[in-house]
Amino acid sequence: MTELKKITVAKGDGIGPEIMDATLEIMRSAGANIEIEEIEVGEKVYLAGNNTGIAKESWDVIRRNKVFLKAPITTPQGGGYKSLNVTTRKFLGLYSNVRPCMSLHPFIQTKHPIMDLVIIRENEEDVYGGIEHQQTDEVVQCLKLISRPGCEKIVRYAFEYAKQYERKKVTCFTKDNIMKQTDGLFHKVFKEIALEYPEIENEHWIVDIGAAKMADTPELFDVIVMPNLYGDILSDVAAQITGSVGLAGSSNIGEECAMFEAIHGSAPRIAGQNIANPSGLLQGAILMLNHIGQTEVAEKIQNAWLKTIEEGTHTYDIYKEGISKQKVNTKEFAAAVIRNLGQKPTILNAVSYAKGRPLNLPKYQRKTPQTKELIGVDMFVHHANIKPNELAAKITALDTENIKLSMITNRGVKVYPDGFDETFCTDHWRCRFQPVKDKTITKQQIIELLQKAEVFNIDTIKTENLYAFDGQPAFSLGQGQ
Amino acid sequence: MTELKKITVAKGDGIGPEIMDATLEIMRSAGANIEIEEIEVGEKVYLAGNNTGIAKESWDVIRRNKVFLKAPITTPQGGGYKSLNVTTRKFLGLYSNVRPCMSLHPFIQTKHPIMDLVIIRENEEDVYGGIEHQQTDEVVQCLKLISRPGCEKIVRYAFEYAKQYERKKVTCFTKDNIMKQTDGLFHKVFKEIALEYPEIENEHWIVDIGAAKMADTPELFDVIVMPNLYGDILSDVAAQITGSVGLAGSSNIGEECAMFEAIHGSAPRIAGQNIANPSGLLQGAILMLNHIGQTEVAEKIQNAWLKTIEEGTHTYDIYKEGISKQKVNTKEFAAAVIRNLGQKPTILNAVSYAKGRPLNLPKYQRKTPQTKELIGVDMFVHHANIKPNELAAKITALDTENIKLSMITNRGVKVYPDGFDETFCTDHWRCRFQPVKDKTITKQQIIELLQKAEVFNIDTIKTENLYAFDGQPAFSLGQGQ
Repeated sequence: MTELKKITVAKGDGIGPEIMDATLEIMRSAGANIEIEEIEVGEKVYLAGNNTGIAKESWDVIRRNKVFLKAPITTPQGGGYKSLNVTTRKFLGLYSNVRPCMSLHPFIQTKHPIMDLVIIRENEEDVYGGIEHQQTDEVVQCLKLISRPGCEKIVRYAFEYAKQYERKKVTCFTKDNIMKQTDGLFHKVFKEIALEYPEIENEHWIVDIGAAKMADTPELFDVIVMPNLYGDILSDVAAQITGSVGLAGSSNIGEECAMFEAIHGSAPRIAGQNIANPSGLLQGAILMLNHIGQTEVAEKIQNAWLKTIEEGTHTYDIYKEGISKQKVNTKEFAAAVIRNLGQKPTILNAVSYAKGRPLNLPKYQRKTPQTKELIGVDMFVHHANIKPNELAAKITALDTENIKLSMITNRGVKVYPDGFDETFCTDHWRCRFQPVKDKTITKQQIIELLQKAEVFNIDTIKTENLYAFDGQPAFSLGQGQ
Repeated sequence: MTELKKITVAKGDGIGPEIMDATLEIMRSAGANIEIEEIEVGEKVYLAGNNTGIAKESWDVIRRNKVFLKAPITTPQGGGYKSLNVTTRKFLGLYSNVRPCMSLHPFIQTKHPIMDLVIIRENEEDVYGGIEHQQTDEVVQCLKLISRPGCEKIVRYAFEYAKQYERKKVTCFTKDNIMKQTDGLFHKVFKEIALEYPEIENEHWIVDIGAAKMADTPELFDVIVMPNLYGDILSDVAAQITGSVGLAGSSNIGEECAMFEAIHGSAPRIAGQNIANPSGLLQGAILMLNHIGQTEVAEKIQNAWLKTIEEGTHTYDIYKEGISKQKVNTKEFAAAVIRNLGQKPTILNAVSYAKGRPLNLPKYQRKTPQTKELIGVDMFVHHANIKPNELAAKITALDTENIKLSMITNRGVKVYPDGFDETFCTDHWRCRFQPVKDKTITKQQIIELLQKAEVFNIDTIKTENLYAFDGQPAFSLGQGQ
């Protein structure tokens, strides 16, 4: 018998309460060893004046129980309301977003009858830090951050997930032919960690070609792990092309806490009518049961659900003349799944999950720091209406006997020395200073450089220090450098 | 009669020469008023020791003629060879990548029989500037740059393209719900420029949902314009799901110069056998003829080509028993297209292009600068093994009577003041300094801040100045701020 697990439940808005009741009933009938602590989140909380949609005490409950099953909520119209999902993800450090995407052919219509893949999306970093600055009239910047802990955690999660769900292959998508440092780190970590799982096949695709293959022939893929932005786009693509986006669940996993949900919304128009399909939330609940190690219950529910789908017991949203056998309401659907507990599907593939093994990963272990050496600085300058060579003449006036201007780029393209007249230049320039032969650069010299720029009326807008780690330069060259 | 236009042609490697000869013969037969100046690029040039794959004199030819039709090339194996396409795009400022993606159902197999869309991808900026820095042990950064000229040029190009090709709708994809400043600018410019084209429908989708729709029901879309990264991924998805990726051409358009090509590679294994399909390069040539205003010739060739496809005259790559009528070689295929000049397809849709109107856009006009005011600075710090509150205690020691620490974030999430214990923190911290009430901040104060940090042994790694433009703060808040 597995340990009793207390979980936090929020019934949410719209169809939330009905599908949550159905989901809890199925879990109880299947023998899930859970105790429910309910909190209120969503519309009522927002409208009561809390712009995060969740009260302080509810946070405490979530943080105490650590496992959170959440029904869809409604964010009221109008400004100022913060996304509850984004807040939860960010503050609880839910680094992993898991999205199983499965076709249920021939019971649900799809152009991709053979499709059963899982997208594991890094959930905290990349361009989603929301660190944006405008510093010139023409150019706006967003920081894309990729961290080694972030990469290690998500890649390890993907392999552990594959193990628990008895999957054969983990694929990685990056754009490391262009972003050699950031996406390069993700790919490098993927290769490192893949070595620890020799029983699982691994492969890497450049994201553009990988995405094209996935959208056209999803049967080529099993588990796919990727950085946040690619995962955001491609998990929606994958869910959509299964043809059954309303039947999908997802999880958000952190080192401490985890949240499970349906991927669809609160559908207020059909709320309270006992007609909604509880399958999406039920899929979230199955992910939860596996997460906490109640894998046999999870397997039993999933097989009963597949059996229910294939026997043609369908709610209105998936009911189709000629394919479906019986149109049922929310409660009847739940009852059908409960009736099928212990049975397996015969046309759809039955599932098998690693027995009794919770999907808990070790806490991230910090690495020993490398030797870091300052070897230059990129000073960014705002200057309108100037040619690269004219700007270079102004900037070289800042040269000292230790450090000199080595190049200027505009949007990454080298424009000095040896630029092309055709290169379109904005008012946003990167001026790279590096030490001359046999000299070094110090922080103090960077400060003096900025001081001198101030004296010479150069409008400096930002800096990026250039470092070597363990002797290896850790920054990109200019295009053409 | 249109003006005689001199164009640069490179026959490339592998199947390049055969398909270029076929393409040129079709253009001549159709009455294209062009004169050819040939250059050599690719494998031989690389192997002769030029790591860019193109000689200085050939650059001069391209820059003089401004219009460049390029066959596929082979980049030799081994390091150090730079991508000719990337170099050309960057240095010639080819800001617009155009990818028509069309199904040829029932003549070419596809899951998407009704599909005829064009992806117009911004080609110079976004994360493709390749500006990457690692400044702490754990975190690597890439700059995403979006510029107003970049947005205006690509969006205007999309609408002008729609006009010339008599298309009805331009759709914009961004992720501006998350990246409010960068993608927000792209979306804003889209809305501004759309107003100038009231006869063309316009709409905007968040890229994840838009991508899902496009991959599932591409018939919803016509012209789609997007920033570089989304365009890179989704143009490959769109081309792939047409089922005819080997039949597609593309163009790269700049203010001065333009390059036209097939999207497939040089296929060395079938080179010299007179069996390759010249359709991809021919599609590139049709884009070129429209670009230079020889639209009637372009229309004539495209309709003859569609007629050839639907009469079942197919090269080996698209030949299919039961659908195709006749298997032909490269030269025979070209001869069939030439024989069909003046005819129109009857099952596939015939095309119609705006008569005699070159697709030349005005040069970008700089805007009047706004009032820019310094209102703070983000100082980034490298610090391992420290809790946010402990770091804050160290950093607040740098406060002056003018400027004070207002927040610390880690990967964009506010961790001070009022952070959460669960938030996973890397060794990369952003410390935001803002003036206290009734005070202002100056560049000199930023320099003094850095100086003080140096004295206090704080490892500063980069800065981002915070500005207001015309009184509006032009940077994002921290998540939770």
